[in-house]
Amino acid sequence: MSDRWMPGGVTAPQGFLASGTWSGIKRNRRPDLALIVATTPAVAAGLFTMNRIKAAPVLLAQQHLRRGRARAILVNSGCANCLTGRQGLRDARTVASAVARQLALPLHDVLVASTGVIGRRLPVARILRAVPRVVQRLSARGHRESAWAILTTDTHPKEAALEWPLGRTRVRLGGMAKGAGMVAPHLATMLAFFTTDVAISARLLRQALQQACEASFHRITVDGDMSTNDTVLILASGQAGNAPITRAGVAFHQFAAHLTRLAAQLAHLLVRDGEGATKVAAIRVIHARSIREAERCARQVANSPLVKTMLAGSDDNVGRIVAAVGASGVHVTPERLRVLVNGRLIVADGRQRPAPRAAVRALMRAETVHVTIDLRAGQAATQLWTCDLTEGYVRLNARYTT
Amino acid sequence: MSDRWMPGGVTAPQGFLASGTWSGIKRNRRPDLALIVATTPAVAAGLFTMNRIKAAPVLLAQQHLRRGRARAILVNSGCANCLTGRQGLRDARTVASAVARQLALPLHDVLVASTGVIGRRLPVARILRAVPRVVQRLSARGHRESAWAILTTDTHPKEAALEWPLGRTRVRLGGMAKGAGMVAPHLATMLAFFTTDVAISARLLRQALQQACEASFHRITVDGDMSTNDTVLILASGQAGNAPITRAGVAFHQFAAHLTRLAAQLAHLLVRDGEGATKVAAIRVIHARSIREAERCARQVANSPLVKTMLAGSDDNVGRIVAAVGASGVHVTPERLRVLVNGRLIVADGRQRPAPRAAVRALMRAETVHVTIDLRAGQAATQLWTCDLTEGYVRLNARYTT
Repeated sequence: MSDRWMPGGVTAPQGFLASGTWSGIKRNRRPDLALIVATTPAVAAGLFTMNRIKAAPVLLAQQHLRRGRARAILVNSGCANCLTGRQGLRDARTVASAVARQLALPLHDVLVASTGVIGRRLPVARILRAVPRVVQRLSARGHRESAWAILTTDTHPKEAALEWPLGRTRVRLGGMAKGAGMVAPHLATMLAFFTTDVAISARLLRQALQQACEASFHRITVDGDMSTNDTVLILASGQAGNAPITRAGVAFHQFAAHLTRLAAQLAHLLVRDGEGATKVAAIRVIHARSIREAERCARQVANSPLVKTMLAGSDDNVGRIVAAVGASGVHVTPERLRVLVNGRLIVADGRQRPAPRAAVRALMRAETVHVTIDLRAGQAATQLWTCDLTEGYVRLNARYTT
Repeated sequence: MSDRWMPGGVTAPQGFLASGTWSGIKRNRRPDLALIVATTPAVAAGLFTMNRIKAAPVLLAQQHLRRGRARAILVNSGCANCLTGRQGLRDARTVASAVARQLALPLHDVLVASTGVIGRRLPVARILRAVPRVVQRLSARGHRESAWAILTTDTHPKEAALEWPLGRTRVRLGGMAKGAGMVAPHLATMLAFFTTDVAISARLLRQALQQACEASFHRITVDGDMSTNDTVLILASGQAGNAPITRAGVAFHQFAAHLTRLAAQLAHLLVRDGEGATKVAAIRVIHARSIREAERCARQVANSPLVKTMLAGSDDNVGRIVAAVGASGVHVTPERLRVLVNGRLIVADGRQRPAPRAAVRALMRAETVHVTIDLRAGQAATQLWTCDLTEGYVRLNARYTT
């Protein structure tokens, strides 16, 4: 009896149904409406974008979450319902109400999330027409079709589920996410939804979610942009029958650790599927003077267009990494700085070590490039995941609305 | 008698010679070595990258500038002589010495600057072989060939010169610059060289240079990266015969204003010739709570890959501008925010105004897109210039060393 990955995404835990359908927001009949429902009352928590401009669904979900309970999550892709003023908030409430009515739930039990183009009104009539269908399709095997329906420029759905023993029972955690572009500090246009059958208090559920996001979605960056719609939600059905987790003991820490592991897995899938990305880089900063400086240095390198294009071209222009380190403004003595790529020492003693260019390029061609920046200035360390910047990224984003 | 633009670049002022040649650093016989020389003793000042990792030529030029005097500037393109340790500093000194010997000057009268790939040793032997030639080619009409020799991925040389009356004489200012990639806060991989025949003290020359850079090169951004080699130098020959400027009076302010005007002209040419750029955008933030917030907001928008790719595609996805404003963390009330594109109100009252998409796209197709972000939160304002992010940028930078 130990933990194991399992299939089933958000419907892996007991007490959850999910579905996905096409409502007509997207063209080409690609699915654009997903629903997750807890079959019995559930505890809920959420985290949202730090962007000062928040989309209407974010404002509504925050409002509904105040009670720490919810039963349904309605997600649409293709339209962000952002920059839509009071009308946008009315539209979000209208579609949430339709779901509530159909499921015979109070309005505040329905959470909403949206992703897609900013500045356009939500096509409410189309969504209302699709609500009966998406409710009818709800199934305990509906995880995959709901994971498809939340995507925008992602190339494939991202889901995962974990199971582990807790007391005399086994408990489960499932999740799905979408990312692709705008993935960067503080959640980005990133949606992630988790379900669990663990019995846990709303306060501790929220605390575990924060811990998990801090160590996963906050550690990835695709383009340094931050969206208006980022939403992470979790519902806990309590159907596993464990002794309810109501204090920060062993059971809680185990739960938080598993949620972190699941979130990290989804985060990793997100960055690997970044818009136009062909490879992933782990930027590790060690021996910084402080966590703040480690963080600043890692972000500067991970978001540098010159570093990211170098990765795309598998070029050996590693001086760009050093230029980004210097540009970050953190404390660094050029003579002490060391840079390693996939374990090979490239920069030391204030200079780039003479190495055959072909050898360095071979390192850069790896599917995952591990860059270690050793500042040799203190004790703090951090790591970020990023992806390369390709012509594909530009192509996707130059014509996103068209 | 008033000010006028004139031809002649860095050799427009009296008392200056310039030249350019191919030394063999670059392939394809493209010029890579430039020399500017004052025919008589000159006052000098410089500004350098804020990057914590500074290239060897930057360290040497800073050292030689301590006296506030210099006679020659040797510039090479194709190799940054950065991350080259103590050897790099010796190499920079060796080529400077060769120029000093050839011109019969003390070593400290020769300043150096380099741009190109980081991490490779300066090809000293090739440069030493080319020094007699670049000295022999010195000419009072050599501005154009020296402006060619400092380029890297720029598509054309950038130079300008100004003349204005001062007392009973006319005085002149000339300049040339290179930029292209890595152009962003605090000078970027940007080299700029100015000459003037004004008689002025070293202290005031430096002060005027700082003012001019603050209002020009510091206000442009191509990709948010900052180079290890940024260098701006100015030599003043005093040959115009004006009463020397030794205090911050009218003559000084006039001089500083003209230097600012010239630097702004070169900065504008740099951003228009940004790597892969097809258009320029002026990002103006008004009614911010403070200059700091105006600045932070403008930088976030100007460096957002999503905004820059939207510009490239002339797309109407203006919500991305709002998302970047919100992501900057400055004080903004969504309902008060206004965004104008080329004078047309696009966002107001917390929502994107309904406008024909074709009309918005037509605005975006302009060669220069003027974006005004009205935060309506205070009195501060600022403006930045940026360019679009195209597949051409990625292509250039994925294969820069190859």
